[in-house]
Amino acid sequence: MGKKQDYFVGVDLGGTKLLAVVFDEEYTALGRAKEKVAKSRDNEAVLEKMVEVIRDALDDAGAKPEEISAIGIACPGPVDFENGIVLETPNLGLENFPIRDRLSAELDVPVFLENDVNAGTYGEYVSGAGRGFRHIVGLFPGTGLGGGLILDGRLFRGATGGAGEIGHMIIQVDGRRCGCGQYGCLEAMASRTAIAKDLVALATTGSAPTVYKKAGSDYAAMKSSVIEKGWREGEPAVVDLVNRAARHLGIGMANCVNIFNPELIIIGGGLVEKLGAPYIEQAEHAMREHAMGRLVSIVSVKQAELGDDSTVIGAAALAREHQS
Amino acid sequence: MGKKQDYFVGVDLGGTKLLAVVFDEEYTALGRAKEKVAKSRDNEAVLEKMVEVIRDALDDAGAKPEEISAIGIACPGPVDFENGIVLETPNLGLENFPIRDRLSAELDVPVFLENDVNAGTYGEYVSGAGRGFRHIVGLFPGTGLGGGLILDGRLFRGATGGAGEIGHMIIQVDGRRCGCGQYGCLEAMASRTAIAKDLVALATTGSAPTVYKKAGSDYAAMKSSVIEKGWREGEPAVVDLVNRAARHLGIGMANCVNIFNPELIIIGGGLVEKLGAPYIEQAEHAMREHAMGRLVSIVSVKQAELGDDSTVIGAAALAREHQS
Repeated sequence: MGKKQDYFVGVDLGGTKLLAVVFDEEYTALGRAKEKVAKSRDNEAVLEKMVEVIRDALDDAGAKPEEISAIGIACPGPVDFENGIVLETPNLGLENFPIRDRLSAELDVPVFLENDVNAGTYGEYVSGAGRGFRHIVGLFPGTGLGGGLILDGRLFRGATGGAGEIGHMIIQVDGRRCGCGQYGCLEAMASRTAIAKDLVALATTGSAPTVYKKAGSDYAAMKSSVIEKGWREGEPAVVDLVNRAARHLGIGMANCVNIFNPELIIIGGGLVEKLGAPYIEQAEHAMREHAMGRLVSIVSVKQAELGDDSTVIGAAALAREHQS
Repeated sequence: MGKKQDYFVGVDLGGTKLLAVVFDEEYTALGRAKEKVAKSRDNEAVLEKMVEVIRDALDDAGAKPEEISAIGIACPGPVDFENGIVLETPNLGLENFPIRDRLSAELDVPVFLENDVNAGTYGEYVSGAGRGFRHIVGLFPGTGLGGGLILDGRLFRGATGGAGEIGHMIIQVDGRRCGCGQYGCLEAMASRTAIAKDLVALATTGSAPTVYKKAGSDYAAMKSSVIEKGWREGEPAVVDLVNRAARHLGIGMANCVNIFNPELIIIGGGLVEKLGAPYIEQAEHAMREHAMGRLVSIVSVKQAELGDDSTVIGAAALAREHQS
């Protein structure tokens, strides 16, 4: 308490960008900085850039390093949060990097590390759509389908920090191939990827002209914005595929209702930001059709409110609580 | 602490029987009593019989009513554990019965009410296969498929006490019809019921002669012991159906691994007691094939150890903890 200010920094180490935001105790953003990062497999280079981005964010906030109480880092892929080690980042190529202790030594501030989906769910819990709820399931369909769990008011991590892989819950035995190598995972049935796989084939048949015009039949070009375009134009093939994905998402939500008996399901991520309320309503409709009546009757469904900032807010909040 | 002894009573109010067991502090059974109960929709008659069975169990234990510290009641179907109210028992026909307060007034002892699958999982946790583990998923395939969750060393109930309905996790969109009215629930794909549905049809074709000899094509007669008989005889059609159910159970287990990141999965219930280790090994094999490597590598699978007593032990243990 020798400090005049208690600031917290959240850092989102994404696959292609590094974002640092300085927050006050109410999680108001006071300053921010962003940098591109390339896949380098170079732990030291990433650390150096992280220090730079944090300093830039502090400058932007007009804050001094000694005013920071804690830094939270969120990164994709599995982490060892107890020891602050990045185990593996699919895109950046980091491996077994003790980023917590390294960054802490560099800046002389307590650092906390968490997986990005957990951090994002926690951010929505402390400062977004989840405020006031104690039992929350967060689902974030995009390229993958991330899941985060707030149970009894706490981030639930399971035995070794890996809980919440709801995207890899199989909802269709021997169903569509998933990026993880299994078949029929929720991610393979409900994410942007699930839609894109069918769209590339449909596009070549002339059934989705708006999409074809924007992206051809190139899978890599089938971004959420392209899907949104075809969907807003009311192109029947695109509408049908989006509806199917929404129904599958709703079935995944229903499973979560039956398993966790939550009060709230938060839906966020890239696809949801593009397709918005009508998409969520469809998923919610399917959820209410497929879950047990006495459990689903107490569940609310809300869209995530914080966008990309949920991750940095959650990382900062977790760092703050861990350090206190 | 005015008592010479601290005894705990667990009561299992099943669909057809009432079992009461008196335990000491180490959950050693000191005495027990059992009675049949008929579907009566008569709350008062059930209460009266419960008092009688508890008194008989005390007699059997040579214990006095004043030596009981707490009574735990486990019953099927949803309960309001906070208020000690049986909401609904599918077989007995009880409805909205405040059994906790009524029994407590009758015997002048603190009473605690819990759902039977939760109690059974908790019993295995405190005194059976789950001792020493803190993150446990219990799965009990039989007529239905019950699920119980121990998370961070505590029974997990969710927002309104209904969590753990793992049997109604959909693993096959638009799959087999489930008793709950949905399609493709784990229960509909992996329980005794799932096997029995196919067996009745197969039996009429002559493909399962051992089964046909014992049960004809009568669905109601397709008990676990009949399935066991055909399976032990190595009847290909029966072996195939059991293998399929075990694989589906394993996929359900894999989903639990990915979602909860548990240390232990306990498999119990009627079907498992009949088919034993080979059946569990098959399910475990499928689980290891379908779950994420880094999560499944830390999971053990064990058969439940306590049989029917898991429920009374768990009920007694929960009553004890709730009261202390």
